[in-house]
Amino acid sequence: MDERMIQKRPVTRVTGRSSERFDDDVAVERALEIRVDGRELSVTLRTPGHDEDLALGFLASEGVLRRAEDVRACTSSAATHRDEPDVIDISLADGVALDWSKLERNFASTAACGICGRAHLESLHAGLALAGEGPAVRIERAALLALPERVRALQAGFAATGGVHAAVWCDGALEPRVSREDVGRHNAVDKVCGWRLREGLHGTREGLLWVSGRAGAELVLKAARSRIPVLAAVGAPTTLAIELAETAGLTLVGFLREGRMNVYTGDAIA
Amino acid sequence: MDERMIQKRPVTRVTGRSSERFDDDVAVERALEIRVDGRELSVTLRTPGHDEDLALGFLASEGVLRRAEDVRACTSSAATHRDEPDVIDISLADGVALDWSKLERNFASTAACGICGRAHLESLHAGLALAGEGPAVRIERAALLALPERVRALQAGFAATGGVHAAVWCDGALEPRVSREDVGRHNAVDKVCGWRLREGLHGTREGLLWVSGRAGAELVLKAARSRIPVLAAVGAPTTLAIELAETAGLTLVGFLREGRMNVYTGDAIA
Repeated sequence: MDERMIQKRPVTRVTGRSSERFDDDVAVERALEIRVDGRELSVTLRTPGHDEDLALGFLASEGVLRRAEDVRACTSSAATHRDEPDVIDISLADGVALDWSKLERNFASTAACGICGRAHLESLHAGLALAGEGPAVRIERAALLALPERVRALQAGFAATGGVHAAVWCDGALEPRVSREDVGRHNAVDKVCGWRLREGLHGTREGLLWVSGRAGAELVLKAARSRIPVLAAVGAPTTLAIELAETAGLTLVGFLREGRMNVYTGDAIA
Repeated sequence: MDERMIQKRPVTRVTGRSSERFDDDVAVERALEIRVDGRELSVTLRTPGHDEDLALGFLASEGVLRRAEDVRACTSSAATHRDEPDVIDISLADGVALDWSKLERNFASTAACGICGRAHLESLHAGLALAGEGPAVRIERAALLALPERVRALQAGFAATGGVHAAVWCDGALEPRVSREDVGRHNAVDKVCGWRLREGLHGTREGLLWVSGRAGAELVLKAARSRIPVLAAVGAPTTLAIELAETAGLTLVGFLREGRMNVYTGDAIA
């Protein structure tokens, strides 16, 4: 297996009352800046590998490229610092016109995918440690293992369509307090965080965010920025999610299902 | 069930050699423009409902809002035309400072989440019909039902981590030609489309794009722009994905697994 794509991370696997420590295979998530003729167009979080295909396909999808001959050269360089993106630069062939103003308009007003964009990237680790302040958070292990069964009833949209993600915020006793569904993973979490804001809970370090899918970097960021100290996902985490959770002092749980879970960071699970 | 969130769409369910027509519950996906004090900040594709929570949570996550008292009023209006977004406008309380230049910098350089942003939205339906031109495409039903078993072997990253999405482009005989994995759904598809560009296949109307997850609007757009005439997803489609597939003349298949599939649009499945 290509180690650019998959890396080992230590994890505690909890099954019922027993737990074991081992190294898990985790999908790599890293930032890539896509440049055209040396000028930054986009920063995305991706799994390294086939970066040239990624950049070409992205530019083709945006209408910049129409055929292989539109590309003169493709150069890439790996980041030298954690907070810097890898870079891939596509040089266009002579005569290939690029309407920067139109392209930038396309990207000028976007959102909700969490972090993409250099400014977001630069702030990835900044300010997150605040989320780790305050008294210790304790989530009872057996209650957490029983949570999937309890939140299932809250996923009416998924039951009907199979096509929406859910996010649930539970208080410190693991009582579900708000549940939201959306076709967008980030949207479901934003809806939960917006409810917390309306209820005066934004910034209070309490409870647990449960998500029906995977735990990517942007979901860890949203949880940490709302100061929710525990993120528990049905699916897998990424390497960047684990890294950011460590920075934030957030407890990150993955594969929470069927009476089992993997604890990747943090000590909130009692 | 809230009909803003879930709507009925006609579908042909294929099981082995038999098929039946019925109305399926599909998750609604629609554009929402988030404004702050009347000024556009972001356009996102979301499932309608709890839009205020979505906007508040998004703005809290961006650091614009810190508590409920930061908001003076929240007004929303539904779109009157298919290509227009719904709108939600958050008025900030006196004294809440908003650094537009910083915010816009955060969004100035983003990508890869497919469509977000008004410029993208306006072009949603434009140019897509081209994808429907050319001779009829025929995909053999039995071969398609057998495809999940064949592509499983190509998902080494998923097998190891459970955390990556896969996209596979198959030629007209359903032979897998390129397979890519990524933590981002759109990235996996961009990598496939980039390979097609390098191989001189971009814009050739042939074959089928298989994706390991759901079929949202942005994946239909990427397939159509590469002129791949069939999109087959393991998961569910959204209402907007179905609508865009109809516009593009693209055959959209969902829930392709365990010897079954749902055909939502198009006539490519023979």
